[in-house]
Amino acid sequence: MTRKIGVIGMGHVGSTVAHYIVAGGFADELVLIDTNEDKVVADATDFEDAMSNLNAHTNIIVNDYTTIKDADVVISAVGNIKLQKDNKEHDRFIELPFTGKAAKAVGEKVKASGFNGVFIDITNPCDVITSMYQVFTGLPKERVIGTGTLLDSSRMRRAVAKELSIDPRSVSGYNLGEHGNSQFTAWSTVNVLGRPITEIAKERNIDLEKLDEMARAGGYTVFHGKKYTNYGIATAAVRLANIIMSDARTEIPVSNYREEVGTYLSYPAIVGKKGILEQVQLNLTEEENEKLKTSANYIKTRFESTMKEMGEFD
Amino acid sequence: MTRKIGVIGMGHVGSTVAHYIVAGGFADELVLIDTNEDKVVADATDFEDAMSNLNAHTNIIVNDYTTIKDADVVISAVGNIKLQKDNKEHDRFIELPFTGKAAKAVGEKVKASGFNGVFIDITNPCDVITSMYQVFTGLPKERVIGTGTLLDSSRMRRAVAKELSIDPRSVSGYNLGEHGNSQFTAWSTVNVLGRPITEIAKERNIDLEKLDEMARAGGYTVFHGKKYTNYGIATAAVRLANIIMSDARTEIPVSNYREEVGTYLSYPAIVGKKGILEQVQLNLTEEENEKLKTSANYIKTRFESTMKEMGEFD
Amino acid sequence: MTRKIGVIGMGHVGSTVAHYIVAGGFADELVLIDTNEDKVVADATDFEDAMSNLNAHTNIIVNDYTTIKDADVVISAVGNIKLQKDNKEHDRFIELPFTGKAAKAVGEKVKASGFNGVFIDITNPCDVITSMYQVFTGLPKERVIGTGTLLDSSRMRRAVAKELSIDPRSVSGYNLGEHGNSQFTAWSTVNVLGRPITEIAKERNIDLEKLDEMARAGGYTVFHGKKYTNYGIATAAVRLANIIMSDARTEIPVSNYREEVGTYLSYPAIVGKKGILEQVQLNLTEEENEKLKTSANYIKTRFESTMKEMGEFD
Amino acid sequence: MTRKIGVIGMGHVGSTVAHYIVAGGFADELVLIDTNEDKVVADATDFEDAMSNLNAHTNIIVNDYTTIKDADVVISAVGNIKLQKDNKEHDRFIELPFTGKAAKAVGEKVKASGFNGVFIDITNPCDVITSMYQVFTGLPKERVIGTGTLLDSSRMRRAVAKELSIDPRSVSGYNLGEHGNSQFTAWSTVNVLGRPITEIAKERNIDLEKLDEMARAGGYTVFHGKKYTNYGIATAAVRLANIIMSDARTEIPVSNYREEVGTYLSYPAIVGKKGILEQVQLNLTEEENEKLKTSANYIKTRFESTMKEMGEFD
Repeated sequence: MTRKIGVIGMGHVGSTVAHYIVAGGFADELVLIDTNEDKVVADATDFEDAMSNLNAHTNIIVNDYTTIKDADVVISAVGNIKLQKDNKEHDRFIELPFTGKAAKAVGEKVKASGFNGVFIDITNPCDVITSMYQVFTGLPKERVIGTGTLLDSSRMRRAVAKELSIDPRSVSGYNLGEHGNSQFTAWSTVNVLGRPITEIAKERNIDLEKLDEMARAGGYTVFHGKKYTNYGIATAAVRLANIIMSDARTEIPVSNYREEVGTYLSYPAIVGKKGILEQVQLNLTEEENEKLKTSANYIKTRFESTMKEMGEFD
Repeated sequence: MTRKIGVIGMGHVGSTVAHYIVAGGFADELVLIDTNEDKVVADATDFEDAMSNLNAHTNIIVNDYTTIKDADVVISAVGNIKLQKDNKEHDRFIELPFTGKAAKAVGEKVKASGFNGVFIDITNPCDVITSMYQVFTGLPKERVIGTGTLLDSSRMRRAVAKELSIDPRSVSGYNLGEHGNSQFTAWSTVNVLGRPITEIAKERNIDLEKLDEMARAGGYTVFHGKKYTNYGIATAAVRLANIIMSDARTEIPVSNYREEVGTYLSYPAIVGKKGILEQVQLNLTEEENEKLKTSANYIKTRFESTMKEMGEFD
Repeated sequence: MTRKIGVIGMGHVGSTVAHYIVAGGFADELVLIDTNEDKVVADATDFEDAMSNLNAHTNIIVNDYTTIKDADVVISAVGNIKLQKDNKEHDRFIELPFTGKAAKAVGEKVKASGFNGVFIDITNPCDVITSMYQVFTGLPKERVIGTGTLLDSSRMRRAVAKELSIDPRSVSGYNLGEHGNSQFTAWSTVNVLGRPITEIAKERNIDLEKLDEMARAGGYTVFHGKKYTNYGIATAAVRLANIIMSDARTEIPVSNYREEVGTYLSYPAIVGKKGILEQVQLNLTEEENEKLKTSANYIKTRFESTMKEMGEFD
Repeated sequence: MTRKIGVIGMGHVGSTVAHYIVAGGFADELVLIDTNEDKVVADATDFEDAMSNLNAHTNIIVNDYTTIKDADVVISAVGNIKLQKDNKEHDRFIELPFTGKAAKAVGEKVKASGFNGVFIDITNPCDVITSMYQVFTGLPKERVIGTGTLLDSSRMRRAVAKELSIDPRSVSGYNLGEHGNSQFTAWSTVNVLGRPITEIAKERNIDLEKLDEMARAGGYTVFHGKKYTNYGIATAAVRLANIIMSDARTEIPVSNYREEVGTYLSYPAIVGKKGILEQVQLNLTEEENEKLKTSANYIKTRFESTMKEMGEFD
């Protein structure tokens, strides 16, 4: 009964998310929300100026939290471009003083709306903010998901695909952990050309460390060249939204709450209409498991300290 | 044999054009060009970071003019954001000192590439720059087209549709003349609800001047809220490119050279693989014809004076 | 909350409707219903065999009327291929003995399901069957719509477009009345190349009668060559379903109940989420109005006599 | 410069291929060819009757082999429905007496046209006919590809996905060998839920033989219910065509010539604009390798005997 998406935050990422949804005809109703009323009205009008040249129709609603009550998906793309610009260390925590507070404010409004669908968080630091959104929206853990390393995995697939001159869609496997500096490529999960990449790499003298570096460097290149990144992350978020709306039950690496490490972090899961439907259990190497634990601890510590600072935990 | 598009200028508009092409899978090869190497590489990488989450594949080439030789369409989205930002009068000529020179530089490079498809100009002031591109690319007049009032018509359709609570796709009719302050809605061409809008307006006490104002105001709202406009114009340009690539022979209001007024200006034409295939002849009112003439003269005068200043005409 | 469509009748038309929905990713859930269990299971399995090579995911449900309760749209594509095959006169009433009974049986099941969306009828004779479905489903008149002359209009647009070497999308205007032998092109509503076609036809010596004949002949050509028609009609029905699901409020010629003639017949209307939202009032010529009246009377008479024969009217 | 596809054979499969291409807007020009002129004209007209209700435009050409000269892809969907109907053993060789001759006739016409793109064969028995097309078109081996077990793999993915309640797109792995009774699922290549399916199957007590049976049974169900299969195979063929046109370099299981076994058979390969770009080397089990060899020998023997019967080999 009507595909409905809410997008909160009309910065570079949020407006690209909204554009992709409108251009692809993925939603029947699109609710756009931003504290900067001028900006969100500008984008909404710009989309409406595009409408008669587009194939699919989308009805757009601006800055009305009550209308997300029956949305399928709400996406947080809240961010602070000024804090990002100074971000020489590529540390996503630089935004936390701003986005932590935003997560509380937005989460409470989402809760008040009676929203009962799946909440997707793009806002950084992704795993900590996703954890916070789960608390503030009051939604069950399986219905709050962070885009997490879906983007990092896509960057890894781009790098591997370039090296081998193949389609990035023909590279399987995952980056795991924090969507941040402690994330890592779980090379044991990566298959290409019908075999484990470790085997192919040996045969062809490919340095996996170098590929890891290429994946990461891609993100820096994007950031360096325009002071923000938007297309890769927006595409990841909209893909996730489409998986949810069509109840596709797709395996995808996203930030989801894993009981055994006691925190949100990226690890593949089966995603559908009701959010996380099943959690995958990979055969990681011992080294990968160590990295994952380190990443988990980092997220957990930062989440807890942030919540304490905000007076949310005693 | 491969749909191929070149986009020149990776500002807000050009990168949105490129994103929409990639997201829609409209081209097999996409050539992105900008003098700011960091920016164009950033966008290209960002698109590649999106690729494994997209359905259709697009191969992206950066800053290589030689590769547009066999492109179907090349789109100029060159602009100067700094000049635009100071644009309090909404006068698109404020960019001319920059874009006039750019049209020469870009046009000559396009010519040198051997490009032989259809050239689409978005760059403002659209009709003057389109005229210049025709000169500098050396392409026949029917193969150089400006997006012109395709956007203005879309804004008019948005305003009319809102007033009547109908789909903007169900509003037919055109804005004509300059893509600038001398453009006007040719209300005699506008049909809604199965009848001329003039008739509907009388019945329902709708003020057409007010609708005209709403259409224009929409553009200002967008500009005011974000200091640029991108989604409406990018959508118009990509629709035009798709019409050309599929040889659809669609009637569409774009800036094309009309012999009887001796200049490029927006007026509906049948567009296909070879550009402008046939020029429409509307039954305008006397008043509309006057407005069109005024608009034509304005464009012609500005084009000629610019070319003289640039030493192109003796 | 999930786009959901039911398709009843898995013959040539129904299965093409279902395929287009699956291939286009237009619905999240698709309910397929047919009395021939083997056929509907075959099509459902065939779609599922396609799924991993398709981009969008669709969940398919077979032969369960209870699941259409919360569908947005239900489409009747019930038909009788054997009766159609003997149809040398191209008289759609040849199917009525079969489809009339089917409309009652299906309509009552749809009603029992609690379905509350918009019901689209393709089943022929379209206007009579649409009228019957309205009775048997118990839905309000504005929520039962026949595809009617949406297909005939599309055939007219194809014929006109061919004659003028333009895009059929650039031909506006309507065929009106019965989706059957009493339908007619309302040439006064047809515009091409920015002007009334009557004017263009005079200038270019185009015989509108001949175009009418070409439009009709196209249908016969299709029927003659394969003993059924499916792509044109299925595309029309799915377009209508998409307009409804996205609440686009598009003007479109479909079979809808017009109070002033006391029957369902095709006439443009604004269509959205709640079905017929507004009825258009065309400026027809006197001759066209006469034709419309004749067509209306024909439909009304046939509807009433059929209902009497079925013992539904006293 | 224009995406162009030729489809030869307008039976159930060919017309579904054509419809999906038109509905998806995948080609700018579509050439339809069939010896039954009435049928191919009927389908072409039916597509044109759909055009004004579709978003993308496709120009359609009928029965003109000269126009495929510059096509990107030509697809053979030639078949014999009468021979298929009697096919109680599900033996695709039942069609060979008809399709063998057709492959020669069509192949020679394709060669005469000067076609130089990639030729896709759907016609059964797929591997033998693909081999024959390679001979008769005179195209290099890497530019003639059979859809092969792309459909069988898709059926396996459907069966596995159903068993595990996951998206078939989240099942990787391949069916190999003949698109016929000697094909087999190479379970060693199948991964689900982040691990080898053999491991998951053990944990969850899943019988892989049963899944194999379910995959095969699906095909029979489709055939049993409608006496042909079309949607799954057409989707596979169009996906392959899109991979080629966009030069995506995707890994996909298709019938391609493998030097080490001296025949066409299905085995994953990297596919792009120039056909087979790279052949994958899987780590099959010994048993799987045996099955593959058996399948290869069967295809080779049948191909050679057929060519001898046709007097093509001495």
